[in-house]
Amino acid sequence: MAAAARLASRARPLSRPNPGVGCLLVKDTIVVGRGWTQPGGRPHAEAAAIAQAGVAARGATAYVTLEPCAHQSPRGPACSKVLSEAGIARVVVGAKDPDPRTAGAGITHLRSAGVTVEMLASTAATDSLSGYLTRTALARPHVTLKLAISLDGCIALANGESQWITGEAARAHVHSQRARADAILVGGGSWRSDAPRLDVRLSGLEHCIPERWVLTSKAADGARNIAAPADIAQMDGVQYLYVEGGAQTAASFLAADLVDRIELYRAPIIIGGGKPAIADLGLTDLAAAHGRWQHTERRQLGSDSFDAYRRTR
Amino acid sequence: MAAAARLASRARPLSRPNPGVGCLLVKDTIVVGRGWTQPGGRPHAEAAAIAQAGVAARGATAYVTLEPCAHQSPRGPACSKVLSEAGIARVVVGAKDPDPRTAGAGITHLRSAGVTVEMLASTAATDSLSGYLTRTALARPHVTLKLAISLDGCIALANGESQWITGEAARAHVHSQRARADAILVGGGSWRSDAPRLDVRLSGLEHCIPERWVLTSKAADGARNIAAPADIAQMDGVQYLYVEGGAQTAASFLAADLVDRIELYRAPIIIGGGKPAIADLGLTDLAAAHGRWQHTERRQLGSDSFDAYRRTR
Repeated sequence: MAAAARLASRARPLSRPNPGVGCLLVKDTIVVGRGWTQPGGRPHAEAAAIAQAGVAARGATAYVTLEPCAHQSPRGPACSKVLSEAGIARVVVGAKDPDPRTAGAGITHLRSAGVTVEMLASTAATDSLSGYLTRTALARPHVTLKLAISLDGCIALANGESQWITGEAARAHVHSQRARADAILVGGGSWRSDAPRLDVRLSGLEHCIPERWVLTSKAADGARNIAAPADIAQMDGVQYLYVEGGAQTAASFLAADLVDRIELYRAPIIIGGGKPAIADLGLTDLAAAHGRWQHTERRQLGSDSFDAYRRTR
Repeated sequence: MAAAARLASRARPLSRPNPGVGCLLVKDTIVVGRGWTQPGGRPHAEAAAIAQAGVAARGATAYVTLEPCAHQSPRGPACSKVLSEAGIARVVVGAKDPDPRTAGAGITHLRSAGVTVEMLASTAATDSLSGYLTRTALARPHVTLKLAISLDGCIALANGESQWITGEAARAHVHSQRARADAILVGGGSWRSDAPRLDVRLSGLEHCIPERWVLTSKAADGARNIAAPADIAQMDGVQYLYVEGGAQTAASFLAADLVDRIELYRAPIIIGGGKPAIADLGLTDLAAAHGRWQHTERRQLGSDSFDAYRRTR
């Protein structure tokens, strides 16, 4: 299922508005087909994997990150039907589909067609679907807050200089994360003072152009704007929102409890008396800060470190 | 040599004012003796290892973190003589001894007695001797700055609340680091407002009582004081100084370039608008902050992370 979840990541972000799903077909311990949701949402991962496997699909086990869909659409057949008709013997499902058109009906269809179905409680699968699941459950995008800081938590010198805190490898990683997002947001101050390009400067990924949003009550030239973090609910079709700061915007999203993941890049430098990464949250009780963030990922990027934290809810 | 360096760490801090040395005797691929500098500085590591090996020392190879001493003392014989008389065939040395009474004379004595001597450029050995080597080269203790911070670099809420940022495992680790220090220092503000005990609350280590120092121009009840970071040169016999803050004291030591190691405990919490870990350093050029700190160690302590950084000079 972890391998299927990694396949699913290839669907980001171009599968939108469909969930990015991964599907792996295994027969006699051999992988006979691999598929992921294609750009625009079709074909689905299951159809792609079955097309790759051909006749080898017959009798195979399918590992799918999300419950196969049960609804026929003008754009293609239902995956539960595709799987049963291809002769798949067993389907292992990473997460149930909350879409009311499926919501268990995909599993029911498969079982009634004689296919064995197993449900896994797979963190890898739900993580790979976090944008889709957040949209469905909370009617808003999944929000990642990016911070690039010194050891002492500063994002700039007192005089405002911020280029560069982190090194080339970390900055390239940021661009790869932008490429995986549907939309990027910065605060009005950053937008006007830094005029950030917010594009993806990585060879081969130039076609990934996230929507640009600004948190501001005034119109922002070259981007769309929202006046408050809660307005992210208006971002139609956006599954993954990547918030790049500054400190006031970070604080606004944190105060509204609208951050699902923090991605922290940390350079081995000390600034001392610089600009803090997060503006005032009005916290008056230290105990209230604990128990909210779980460390999920770490890697070294040149001399900088990268850590990811998940909001536990 | 790495194993000998780990043995040497057992000498901290009780070997002072002598360097904490480790010695491993190996014969026919078997470890026949292990020694480290004993409390008060005697016996030396080599004598302890030879006493353990007995007749097995004859023909063995000795791995020693520091060049064996060449000077007879009222407190014991010279180690280079002890090694040659025990019939050691070969000595591998991790670092030369800058003490003018030895400074190569130990190696010369061994070679003239027919013992093979090899010099290793061993980072493990010099790291384990950093307090002694810093004292000898710079006439001051080796300084470790400890910081316990939130993800956004705060050491307290805006209202001053700081108990606790980090969890139990991290705090126990701090106590074990105190036990390895000869002296602990805090700023005058922390001393007066927090009344820190600065003791070692770990079972079996209660006898490790570091000297207590305060950075203040006024007298500090229950501790000794220095008026400026440069005055650490007056700390007689102190090889390892552990600086615990607060933010102004951290900034003073960093501004004076008197920090050799940073030990960073980081809790997975966001404070936002809290008290920053490091007060103003007056930095006006971001490039000047880079290239000073090398990441050397990382471990997980419960839900907190621990990272160590070495000042590259």
